[in-house]
Amino acid sequence: MRLHRVCQDRVDVGLDFVATEEPMEIRLMVGSERRTLAVTMRTPGNDFELAAGFLFAEGLVSDRHEIVRIAYCQDPGLDPEQQYNVVTVVLRHQRLPDLRLVERRFTTTSACGVCGKASLEALRLRACGPVVSGPQLDPAVLRTLAGRMRKSQTLFEVTGGLHAAALFDPAGRLVAVREDVGRHNAMDKLVGWALLEGRLPLCEGVVVVTGRASFELVQKAVLAGVPVFCAVSAPSSLAVEVARAFGMTLVGFLSEERFNVYSGGERICWPSRVSLSTARV
Amino acid sequence: MRLHRVCQDRVDVGLDFVATEEPMEIRLMVGSERRTLAVTMRTPGNDFELAAGFLFAEGLVSDRHEIVRIAYCQDPGLDPEQQYNVVTVVLRHQRLPDLRLVERRFTTTSACGVCGKASLEALRLRACGPVVSGPQLDPAVLRTLAGRMRKSQTLFEVTGGLHAAALFDPAGRLVAVREDVGRHNAMDKLVGWALLEGRLPLCEGVVVVTGRASFELVQKAVLAGVPVFCAVSAPSSLAVEVARAFGMTLVGFLSEERFNVYSGGERICWPSRVSLSTARV
Repeated sequence: MRLHRVCQDRVDVGLDFVATEEPMEIRLMVGSERRTLAVTMRTPGNDFELAAGFLFAEGLVSDRHEIVRIAYCQDPGLDPEQQYNVVTVVLRHQRLPDLRLVERRFTTTSACGVCGKASLEALRLRACGPVVSGPQLDPAVLRTLAGRMRKSQTLFEVTGGLHAAALFDPAGRLVAVREDVGRHNAMDKLVGWALLEGRLPLCEGVVVVTGRASFELVQKAVLAGVPVFCAVSAPSSLAVEVARAFGMTLVGFLSEERFNVYSGGERICWPSRVSLSTARV
Repeated sequence: MRLHRVCQDRVDVGLDFVATEEPMEIRLMVGSERRTLAVTMRTPGNDFELAAGFLFAEGLVSDRHEIVRIAYCQDPGLDPEQQYNVVTVVLRHQRLPDLRLVERRFTTTSACGVCGKASLEALRLRACGPVVSGPQLDPAVLRTLAGRMRKSQTLFEVTGGLHAAALFDPAGRLVAVREDVGRHNAMDKLVGWALLEGRLPLCEGVVVVTGRASFELVQKAVLAGVPVFCAVSAPSSLAVEVARAFGMTLVGFLSEERFNVYSGGERICWPSRVSLSTARV
């Protein structure tokens, strides 16, 4: 892609790569019935995992055996470019799920009530329960994870513009990484991969994401049974509330130098002496 | 909020602030009819602007005079905490708008077609047309804008975790800035403010956002008539396509040092000598 590159007072006319963003339509199919579930903007790649992860996050499937198959649209009259932007998920259900609930997301049926508490309640109804076990982590290993994720991001290297979600084991070894222009898509791809591989719940997993820890991302991690969730940037208040309610370890501002632990500090192997300070750094 | 703060081998137990994230329900009301439009996670503050900007982005209103009033839910039996999470927009319409189109977003009616081209077409139908005029900008002024936005982010200072969308005039003076945990919300708040102030379209405006330039953000800027859109991080392919199709100046990787211009370079006052290079930096 041609562009002007400005650095201080110098200007170059040059070429560069940018991250691809295209819409993807997810369709559900049960028997001969089919319906569009959603259209989401995404970076092409791992599209079936994205579809599977999206369905899992929306509570439409909880196990890979509920999925018969996932395929790109086979319509022969279709523009080839568009064929790979339509993914059909064939479900083993009796009938198409009620999508009105999904389209609303966070629907609260009470007459006039929507608050963090309601969102937490809704999540409690869907998650199997609090994350009870999980690994013990060396803080020195934790500090390496953001760097390891970045190194594994093949597309980021080229475009400088992709979010990622990575799964590590407790020793800090990379298990899987998924990238997307959208933070939520990267996480959905990672969880979708785990679902299709039959690896859920991720009881011993450490998930690291670029960007912030929002309610929605932490919610996706809770549903996937992740005990340790780390973000490169800040968490939100509701993200911390959710992590605390579900006993998940929530780490923010993860870098090679430092990190903050907002919840579930018992999974960190602290050095023997921890100093008490109330000053902000 | 209490947390463990790890810096290299040191651990402090301390306090810190995190950005508030709460769900907000947007309801529409026409006469005595009312309906929930959406529930979105957001940082409380400028809620009416968020609601107005959301409606504008979804094509439900195009002018402030279509809005009779915006108010928090008045239900006296309601938990006070929840009252400020439900915003009702009273519309001057004849009847409630058809929300099925909105719930889908990016709906393409063709049997099996969803691609960047379709999204671009849909946007072309809604936008008044290409951005024709717009200011001439000094690159040295442009390079100051990301820093100025950051300095004006009151909440970011404290929490380290908020996205922002800021409007500048061509001389680099800050006109307005809005913050939110969500990038789209920050942009919706800014556009909602402009709508309610009767300032749309923003023909002479330079908009700067934290994070990446995605299709959705650039789309919101096109609809608001913004001639120059700058992101602190990378743009996506479809964002560049949209900017080029609508004659908008799109700047990425904006910092004090450097920036890239992906589209609409004719609005930048280049120094007389521009060197040609195809090397990537």
